[in-house]
Amino acid sequence: MAKSKYEYVKNFELPDPCLPNCWIVVRIDGRGFSRFADIHGYVKPNDVRGLNLMTRAATCVMDEFRDICLAFGQSDEYSFVFRKDTNLFNRRASKLMTVVNSLFASSFVFHWTGFFGPIRLQYPPTFDARVVMYPTDKNLRDYLGWRQADAHVNNLYNTAFWGLVLKKGFSNTQAEERLRGTLASDKNELLFSEFGLNYNNEPPMFRKGTVLIRKLCKTPGDGKLRHVVLPFYTDLIGDMFWRENPEILGMKSLQVYHRPTEENSIIQEHSKSSPKQDTPGSVASPTTNENSLISSEK
Amino acid sequence: MAKSKYEYVKNFELPDPCLPNCWIVVRIDGRGFSRFADIHGYVKPNDVRGLNLMTRAATCVMDEFRDICLAFGQSDEYSFVFRKDTNLFNRRASKLMTVVNSLFASSFVFHWTGFFGPIRLQYPPTFDARVVMYPTDKNLRDYLGWRQADAHVNNLYNTAFWGLVLKKGFSNTQAEERLRGTLASDKNELLFSEFGLNYNNEPPMFRKGTVLIRKLCKTPGDGKLRHVVLPFYTDLIGDMFWRENPEILGMKSLQVYHRPTEENSIIQEHSKSSPKQDTPGSVASPTTNENSLISSEK
Amino acid sequence: MAKSKYEYVKNFELPDPCLPNCWIVVRIDGRGFSRFADIHGYVKPNDVRGLNLMTRAATCVMDEFRDICLAFGQSDEYSFVFRKDTNLFNRRASKLMTVVNSLFASSFVFHWTGFFGPIRLQYPPTFDARVVMYPTDKNLRDYLGWRQADAHVNNLYNTAFWGLVLKKGFSNTQAEERLRGTLASDKNELLFSEFGLNYNNEPPMFRKGTVLIRKLCKTPGDGKLRHVVLPFYTDLIGDMFWRENPEILGMKSLQVYHRPTEENSIIQEHSKSSPKQDTPGSVASPTTNENSLISSEK
Amino acid sequence: MAKSKYEYVKNFELPDPCLPNCWIVVRIDGRGFSRFADIHGYVKPNDVRGLNLMTRAATCVMDEFRDICLAFGQSDEYSFVFRKDTNLFNRRASKLMTVVNSLFASSFVFHWTGFFGPIRLQYPPTFDARVVMYPTDKNLRDYLGWRQADAHVNNLYNTAFWGLVLKKGFSNTQAEERLRGTLASDKNELLFSEFGLNYNNEPPMFRKGTVLIRKLCKTPGDGKLRHVVLPFYTDLIGDMFWRENPEILGMKSLQVYHRPTEENSIIQEHSKSSPKQDTPGSVASPTTNENSLISSEK
Repeated sequence: MAKSKYEYVKNFELPDPCLPNCWIVVRIDGRGFSRFADIHGYVKPNDVRGLNLMTRAATCVMDEFRDICLAFGQSDEYSFVFRKDTNLFNRRASKLMTVVNSLFASSFVFHWTGFFGPIRLQYPPTFDARVVMYPTDKNLRDYLGWRQADAHVNNLYNTAFWGLVLKKGFSNTQAEERLRGTLASDKNELLFSEFGLNYNNEPPMFRKGTVLIRKLCKTPGDGKLRHVVLPFYTDLIGDMFWRENPEILGMKSLQVYHRPTEENSIIQEHSKSSPKQDTPGSVASPTTNENSLISSEK
Repeated sequence: MAKSKYEYVKNFELPDPCLPNCWIVVRIDGRGFSRFADIHGYVKPNDVRGLNLMTRAATCVMDEFRDICLAFGQSDEYSFVFRKDTNLFNRRASKLMTVVNSLFASSFVFHWTGFFGPIRLQYPPTFDARVVMYPTDKNLRDYLGWRQADAHVNNLYNTAFWGLVLKKGFSNTQAEERLRGTLASDKNELLFSEFGLNYNNEPPMFRKGTVLIRKLCKTPGDGKLRHVVLPFYTDLIGDMFWRENPEILGMKSLQVYHRPTEENSIIQEHSKSSPKQDTPGSVASPTTNENSLISSEK
Repeated sequence: MAKSKYEYVKNFELPDPCLPNCWIVVRIDGRGFSRFADIHGYVKPNDVRGLNLMTRAATCVMDEFRDICLAFGQSDEYSFVFRKDTNLFNRRASKLMTVVNSLFASSFVFHWTGFFGPIRLQYPPTFDARVVMYPTDKNLRDYLGWRQADAHVNNLYNTAFWGLVLKKGFSNTQAEERLRGTLASDKNELLFSEFGLNYNNEPPMFRKGTVLIRKLCKTPGDGKLRHVVLPFYTDLIGDMFWRENPEILGMKSLQVYHRPTEENSIIQEHSKSSPKQDTPGSVASPTTNENSLISSEK
Repeated sequence: MAKSKYEYVKNFELPDPCLPNCWIVVRIDGRGFSRFADIHGYVKPNDVRGLNLMTRAATCVMDEFRDICLAFGQSDEYSFVFRKDTNLFNRRASKLMTVVNSLFASSFVFHWTGFFGPIRLQYPPTFDARVVMYPTDKNLRDYLGWRQADAHVNNLYNTAFWGLVLKKGFSNTQAEERLRGTLASDKNELLFSEFGLNYNNEPPMFRKGTVLIRKLCKTPGDGKLRHVVLPFYTDLIGDMFWRENPEILGMKSLQVYHRPTEENSIIQEHSKSSPKQDTPGSVASPTTNENSLISSEK
């Protein structure tokens, strides 16, 4: 069988390198996740299990691809930021987006039971992905600001919407009408007056999404420093996060991270599935069971 | 929070449409699958469970995306052919490759247990994907010929290599040396003289890979015709396959498929995990359990 | 001076190959040519000198790049069709479009005086260019049909418009209003009733644009066969042209072309700057002076 | 004639936008210019007329496209830098490179006689062009450093090579052999010892190439400030140029430029076709005849 006779077809594979010296963002996005959430009984407006499963899958991706320096997740999407000097897969766009996307998808299924326990996964989910390049640090920060602002706007709306539906008996249509044209301040006011809910006290994971970055952490057992991917529920728009984590944009070596002392209380809160911490640098506590959101070097 | 301030970053998302009127092939490829196969105890040189799991995942993809008219799998790769007139996702290359790739990956994990039973999946696998366009039917057929010739060449080598290692006690290095520079005829001869094995009697799934196409099949219960994705282990290089399935290149409506009468024997063989059929049009039999390779419309 | 220190910037040059086995069309287009035509006193609605100069420049391009098998020009645009198997510049899109475009532009200026005589070129013109790929012969023919239909539609309109303006004293606005919403048949009727002009008797160069193809022609002097780029003013939409010139789509060797016997009359007509021939295969006669539209091998 | 029937072919024109917020460089390059130079009797190793004609053509381009903030030329190439925030032609790469390239080519022919006088242009020249994006100011400066270092290296070699050939009677092959493997210092030494030539006293235009930037200049007649494109023969690699012309990278409004007082002497030198000025900020003097290298706003 003459192999060579067909090999010319390889020439139809066209190159698609990313421009050098740009931040490379791969954003993955759930496809048809409203239906997926309904079928699997996701809690409205936010399902902590679902969000944590997303973060678990994203952590798998970051553990595998060390040139990803930051990831940001909210709702059914996650953005992965590759160092601007990465040469992974010779910066081929197809490769970068598909390995991230497929590992995310397979991890999502792999870790499903760790988060949803007895609720059986009904069908394998689909995610799409895209690659976007950002030439400057400012462009990258604005990208992350865009996604975080999006998280906020959607969460405020959803909190009000589902409050009306679940607690006041509105139909979906009635809730939509009630909220049409309202400003953020109107929704805040509505939440407070109707439900006694101060939106700013909602869990930061819901309001701000999840930021994943790498740190060096002392391992409980042997005391050695190891690479760890840590989740933060914090503001990315202001300067504080970037000042406190200068190694990200500076592409420097990893920083040692000292876990906050209120760790135990956080564990407790986490076990109740209601992440509340907001201060920059706060973090979900490490746990030892399978659904831990904190990965450590193997 | 001024959302609009950041929205300019959307302009950095560049378009990547596929040229109209070309066949679009998405090929996915396992990453680090030698290690994956070792860790999960894949049988050498071919693991029927592994191959069937790949085909199960590919069938999920074809069930979801009806504009895929054919898929071809071998080893740890699968190629999906979209109709040349597809307008799915406006032919955006990123979308096409990532939805195929992520659904394949999540299905692979989802269906793992159905094929590997008690063998636990150790970690979520990664696949890469690429998009390639082929302007003419001939180019497309040559592409598939390239992949099928590759399946043949690799399988012949692997059959000989693992024969030497597993049955003759060669080390990997010794087996490599023994086979270096041998022609196909040499390997055929070696298989016959050393192991009494007539290569042409090896299961066609191993020698030819798996072709998935759509047909209309009568549903056993209600007798209705339904879309079904069927696996064939047949030659794609000659004209016969294309003559017998003219709707593929002709982009015509689906053909009714009458299952061969020797169906029962095939079931039996399949249950022994040794697909042997070779005649064009032969097919793994439908089964009712979860790891059936034949999908039917929901 | 350390050259190597800077050479990394070469990596920012990204590849842009054309997909193999597709027809490659480079279309150039005059930029701001309404103004250019006004300033240089172009005759309305068609300036034979201007059209012939375009064709002269296109002929220079075809003489230089032998993989261009056909060109089609109308108004201030010209399309160049590269053989689908061309490997010129490794099919790099940038290279192909810029060499065609710059040679066209420099030839336009170089040959200006040969067509416009004492009328001095006031400033150097600008052209843009693009590359478009067509996978099949039908797509290519439809592309050319699109441009020829465009030539027809615009010329019919312009003939009516300038008739009203130049012969009936309409203002531009009045002429626009008169023609708004009219069908082709209305314009034909208007031309006949108002100006006694049978549109179908207008010069085919105006109605159909100019097709350039290569032929082998007997050289008057030594009788040798040489490559010649010949202009035709003929229909590209029907099958006849393609049947009579099968070497174009078939990518065969050049055909010998026997000049029609009514050559002398054509010469005469051509010298009066009113190309009238319409029959497929008709051609502007060769002349010996500088502004000949027929090129022969050097 | 059904126009719409063919219009689908427009969909084959694919988008090719440049990434936002990157410097866009269009580099044009003469094709076959060794032969072109030979045929037209270019002086070796540098022909001032030829270099000035290139600069004249580049000035035409900069006059037309105001978003070009800098151009750099040497030998038969010119690089044009578009502001990183340009939105010209919606940043379409094809458009940007082809309009620059075609205007350069047509201007080259248009202005030929102004520089070469009685020497007739034998045939229209061809240039190719490419688009390259640079994300940061440093990348852009390194690009320009790369081209300027190239100018230096080539000019030093050519000066030595043609010295040997023209003044010492070496054949081309002998000169090549003599220079093979020599360092820059060797060539400097050879020039001094063999020809009494101090390379550093060679005209800066030859050693450094030509930089074109925009300034506001007082018009001799009415004293008004007008946009002017000025040539400098100066170092681009160090910081001084960028400190003295901060509006370029800073994308600020144009600076007023006061011509140096030694203007008259420069004029004189220029009229002898031997540009010698080296100090940053020095400039070829304005002249009033057609082949002036300094353009002023129309």
